[in-house]
Amino acid sequence: MNKGALALLVHGGTENWSPQRWKARFDEVCPDRSVLLLPDASSDPAEVHYAAVWKPHPGELAAFPNLRVIFNLGAGVDALMADRSLPDVPLVRVAVTDLTARMTEYVVLHVLMHHRQEPYLRESQREKRWAPKSQWAAGAVTVGIMGLGTLGADAADALRRLGFRVVGWSRSPKQIEGVTCFHGKLQLDAFLGRINILVCLLPLTLNTRQILNRGLFEKLNRTSPLGAPVVINAGRGGLQNEADILQCLDDGTLGGASLDVYATEPLPVDSPFWTHPKVVLTPHNAADTDPDEISKYVAEQIRRFEAGGALENVVDRNRGY
Amino acid sequence: MNKGALALLVHGGTENWSPQRWKARFDEVCPDRSVLLLPDASSDPAEVHYAAVWKPHPGELAAFPNLRVIFNLGAGVDALMADRSLPDVPLVRVAVTDLTARMTEYVVLHVLMHHRQEPYLRESQREKRWAPKSQWAAGAVTVGIMGLGTLGADAADALRRLGFRVVGWSRSPKQIEGVTCFHGKLQLDAFLGRINILVCLLPLTLNTRQILNRGLFEKLNRTSPLGAPVVINAGRGGLQNEADILQCLDDGTLGGASLDVYATEPLPVDSPFWTHPKVVLTPHNAADTDPDEISKYVAEQIRRFEAGGALENVVDRNRGY
Repeated sequence: MNKGALALLVHGGTENWSPQRWKARFDEVCPDRSVLLLPDASSDPAEVHYAAVWKPHPGELAAFPNLRVIFNLGAGVDALMADRSLPDVPLVRVAVTDLTARMTEYVVLHVLMHHRQEPYLRESQREKRWAPKSQWAAGAVTVGIMGLGTLGADAADALRRLGFRVVGWSRSPKQIEGVTCFHGKLQLDAFLGRINILVCLLPLTLNTRQILNRGLFEKLNRTSPLGAPVVINAGRGGLQNEADILQCLDDGTLGGASLDVYATEPLPVDSPFWTHPKVVLTPHNAADTDPDEISKYVAEQIRRFEAGGALENVVDRNRGY
Repeated sequence: MNKGALALLVHGGTENWSPQRWKARFDEVCPDRSVLLLPDASSDPAEVHYAAVWKPHPGELAAFPNLRVIFNLGAGVDALMADRSLPDVPLVRVAVTDLTARMTEYVVLHVLMHHRQEPYLRESQREKRWAPKSQWAAGAVTVGIMGLGTLGADAADALRRLGFRVVGWSRSPKQIEGVTCFHGKLQLDAFLGRINILVCLLPLTLNTRQILNRGLFEKLNRTSPLGAPVVINAGRGGLQNEADILQCLDDGTLGGASLDVYATEPLPVDSPFWTHPKVVLTPHNAADTDPDEISKYVAEQIRRFEAGGALENVVDRNRGY
């Protein structure tokens, strides 16, 4: 074959993410290239120039001596960063409009659920109680978004349009229309002091591990009509201290939590999160992106790379995302 | 006194809507006018020039011989229209930005809940099952909005920005950016044939009574990844045939329903809606508007009226809204 092969290393996932579905999609968008679904005993590792991966095993990528680019089929690369044998080639995070739109759906839905007292209303329905409580306006609530990359900026914009006050925080300074932006460690407390609903979309790095802990929750704002503040984590499970979340929910430091990610996934059946009345949990499906969109994105990036163009969304290995 | 009095006829409601809270608000925004909380034995009906009402009893408004304007403290005037003794003076529907924003919150929340499979996800949580299902993109779902006044147009815009395909239907032709608009009886079937999630924000009139019935539900579109279509009614209970909704949910004609309004309110404790697994119900609180905003709006309308200006949002009595 003339062109280097594309190897797919896809582990786990729902029917949307089956290795066979990925193979079929990549065969279609890379018709002139060999697409290998690993492990494939008949293939020669030396022929592989590109790898598209979803939760690859540590060390698995080191097997390809002529690898040129790694594409991660999602936004979070923390698991790859932890692989000390990861080849030193460009690592591209997939950032497609479809993924951003889905994450914004999740964020808007869960912010509205807490804002509009959904847990209380579902309980009232179960108890057959017609008991409307006062409902405050969105303008009385400040939503704070940690992480102002593509995902955070889009969610911030959608929430602002719905009438919420929105503030944001990120490692480096950002500017988003209508959103008060804070950055860096020095401005973290000022940011937290404003927030009634905290949305975490940070990447998981050495600096952000367990950043969602009691110390942080105690700095959130408690003066909104919502009462105790709410935390929503759709980033990574490693961002949260799960024991702290449970204790803070129980002692009133937090009024509610929406969690899409966990320290261990699937969430163990004995986790107290399952049955906690203040927890709205989802099985890491906040932004379960369309393989069609992602495969087209990867094919286009390879085409540009081979034509001498620059790759998009290359991970900064020092920063970790 | 020099200025005609403002009479408040406010019946029922939550703590947000207590007659005393209304009185306090109107006293503040109309400092140079007598504000009467009816019934008030000491007041002279002839002094009343304005009435601000919430669910007044039939005949109650006929007691004021010098009434000039009636202000309805909400968007729906169907109950007032049914009062044959209603004085023939301008009837103003309150239409404040706050009410519109709250209704859009409700619509976006409930569309997202059905779109994102919330009933399934909550059931999975109760059963401690980590079982993500494929999630389609918003662009695979068409939301249809019946009623394209201020409320419908704002909700349509918010849904379109989140990525949904949005179509609308109203009595008379409308134009909304990015929304395919249908109108009149002749275009109703074409509108229904596109819809996966139906949102009803129509006024209740002789023409719209029980418009949400089996015949209509059977014309909705069933080809989206959502499966059976969903109905969301935040207009009036009189718009829906409740027996049809229940039967259509049970036989699969409908896949789900979010209801905020009912034929009888409060919803009777023996209603099957309370316990139906496909029904998400709320106690008529979709747009429980801030009395502060409404009282300011009424005071401003009276000021303009007395200065010879035109009243806003006057109900067309032939049209019924």
